[in-house]
Amino acid sequence: MSVTAAKGFTAAGIAAGIKDSGSPDLALVVNQGPRLAAAGVFTANRVKAAPVLWSQQVLGGGRVSAVVLNSGGANACTGPAGFQDTHATAEKAAAVLGHSAAEIAVASTGLIGVRLPMDALLPGIEKAAAELSPHGGEKAAIAIKTTDTVHKTAVAEGDGWTVGGMAKGAGMLAPGLATMLVVLTTDADVEAAGLDAALRAATRTTFDRVDSDGCMSTNDTVLLLASGASGTTPEPGAFAEAVRTVCDDLARQLIGDAEGATKDIRIEVVGAATEDDAVEVGRSIARNNLLKCALHGEDPNWGRVLSAIGTTSAAFDPDKLNVAINGVWVCRDGAAGEDRDLVDMRYREVRITADLAEGTESAVIWANDLTADYVHENSAYSS
Amino acid sequence: MSVTAAKGFTAAGIAAGIKDSGSPDLALVVNQGPRLAAAGVFTANRVKAAPVLWSQQVLGGGRVSAVVLNSGGANACTGPAGFQDTHATAEKAAAVLGHSAAEIAVASTGLIGVRLPMDALLPGIEKAAAELSPHGGEKAAIAIKTTDTVHKTAVAEGDGWTVGGMAKGAGMLAPGLATMLVVLTTDADVEAAGLDAALRAATRTTFDRVDSDGCMSTNDTVLLLASGASGTTPEPGAFAEAVRTVCDDLARQLIGDAEGATKDIRIEVVGAATEDDAVEVGRSIARNNLLKCALHGEDPNWGRVLSAIGTTSAAFDPDKLNVAINGVWVCRDGAAGEDRDLVDMRYREVRITADLAEGTESAVIWANDLTADYVHENSAYSS
Repeated sequence: MSVTAAKGFTAAGIAAGIKDSGSPDLALVVNQGPRLAAAGVFTANRVKAAPVLWSQQVLGGGRVSAVVLNSGGANACTGPAGFQDTHATAEKAAAVLGHSAAEIAVASTGLIGVRLPMDALLPGIEKAAAELSPHGGEKAAIAIKTTDTVHKTAVAEGDGWTVGGMAKGAGMLAPGLATMLVVLTTDADVEAAGLDAALRAATRTTFDRVDSDGCMSTNDTVLLLASGASGTTPEPGAFAEAVRTVCDDLARQLIGDAEGATKDIRIEVVGAATEDDAVEVGRSIARNNLLKCALHGEDPNWGRVLSAIGTTSAAFDPDKLNVAINGVWVCRDGAAGEDRDLVDMRYREVRITADLAEGTESAVIWANDLTADYVHENSAYSS
Repeated sequence: MSVTAAKGFTAAGIAAGIKDSGSPDLALVVNQGPRLAAAGVFTANRVKAAPVLWSQQVLGGGRVSAVVLNSGGANACTGPAGFQDTHATAEKAAAVLGHSAAEIAVASTGLIGVRLPMDALLPGIEKAAAELSPHGGEKAAIAIKTTDTVHKTAVAEGDGWTVGGMAKGAGMLAPGLATMLVVLTTDADVEAAGLDAALRAATRTTFDRVDSDGCMSTNDTVLLLASGASGTTPEPGAFAEAVRTVCDDLARQLIGDAEGATKDIRIEVVGAATEDDAVEVGRSIARNNLLKCALHGEDPNWGRVLSAIGTTSAAFDPDKLNVAINGVWVCRDGAAGEDRDLVDMRYREVRITADLAEGTESAVIWANDLTADYVHENSAYSS
């Protein structure tokens, strides 16, 4: 499973001493080839962590031989010294693995604004390299957790090839991308351009459409590495669909483990004039704190859905809006519809359908409720 | 004080039975003239409550003889029947007061999506009219409360003239305008165009720059009524400043009473290339749930400030950003600056200064922290 489900990859996850807790905090994923093709998508936040700035350069070459990931520190807002730390991390991995540093991606997650303890991290790379294994994917997934309560892995099987992956993320989850680290691997024989196309198409409708708390991170990184070890070049559509399936699975796991959440909210906007309209409306609903509180209280408060729609620039007529919550059309033509007492709110998943009655486009955004536990977790955890 | 501080106005606040609790829920403000000039500013939410749609028409004429305000129901998302209810409210007040319904503004606040109990509201207008008094401003301010813990009034004295006002608002507070009802009155002799200019200038830098929870209401209404009863026409600049002072005072009271809040957060963005940039950055910081939680926990988490700045389109270089919290420059040149332990977070007011280092423009946005009490209040209260 995880990043070692596909042939041609080894991985490891160890405790390097970056976290005070002594929990696993360093992961290594190595592409054994024969191909070293890779693609990456990074945070849209203009304040980017040092490892994001580094890895964007590496990915420009379309080749990645290994990825070093650490939890316990984001290495964001650390200035030139922080960038030097990332560079030193890549150089160390290059020396240990016998690769070029220019082909080594780095990803970090944890506290913003604090330098990484390089005296723990650099020896950790040696230790991790010694534990690399074709069965190490699970341990790698565990080592990148921060406030995640569970580690996240997914896999999709093609015809003679495989796409697998791991993800971390539980807060600061918002589109463009969702805040997280994700490494996907495949043994399909696909070159960098093909990986890039499949990855961008997949993230656009999966990670880009989860929004736990509207907060976009400085460290979002999604990498897709291909080893070519299966010897099979899939049909591009089938490959793209496998990548999308794994991304969707991992994105759902992120929402399911969001900090303090008790509800997973599926917001489907239909009847939109354009897909952009549908996404804008979905995100506005997803980010409405009052609605998120109401859903936490199992209150099918459709008025707050309409309030959120009203703040967008999407095409709609307020008197033609329809809203269903868990299948009950509680709002029709912009006013009260079916009895809201008919809505069963007991389950973790809440389904909101917002019909803009303007066209045929649609989009789905996943979000969470807002809870006292979210407040507690984020007023105590400095990240 | 309140709306009866200025000469030429009477007001009343009574319990009409709109609220199940039996608390005061209906206010009446009457302009006795000789002038009946008025201006209004309304929510930018495209889903507008019936009373907003009605009052926008009334204000188009520049004359308002009376305002009927109710709490206990927003009359939003109530369709054509809801608009008829507002119309009937104005007609009833017109009949009781001997005015034209076309000069009677209506404002409502409370639950969205529920029809008002007209069998309580209409007799309430008669009862309120019987209690109209030049000392009724305080009672009127009390009658428009919803989740407000205190009623809000303010007054500014000019040279021979006065501007007074009342406001309600405790949640769903976000720019464009902040969610609230506000009635301002003056005995200055100013015509509608002059009122409009002063009011728009004032709200742009006061109500438009408070952001308690990022949620924009369907019912925001700010009215300014002039009676001319002082017989004095002020110098426009002095009048505009008085209106701005009252708006600023009321806006601060709204933030000070925001649902569940334990901190009032003053966000000053300086060094911006344009005022629009400063406002965009200020709002992004104001709406960052993770930062709001951190400040609740008295954690001077400047990394979350930078994360929020990074999501904007404002001009800045990530490596030149500076952030002070309560006067301590915890972030310099995009990285850790002075020791964060020097920041004293014990007081209710938290001052964040974000320096974009791009120019000379600035803006101040007021916000609140995010607390478990906010979640509790809004998961139990259906609004």
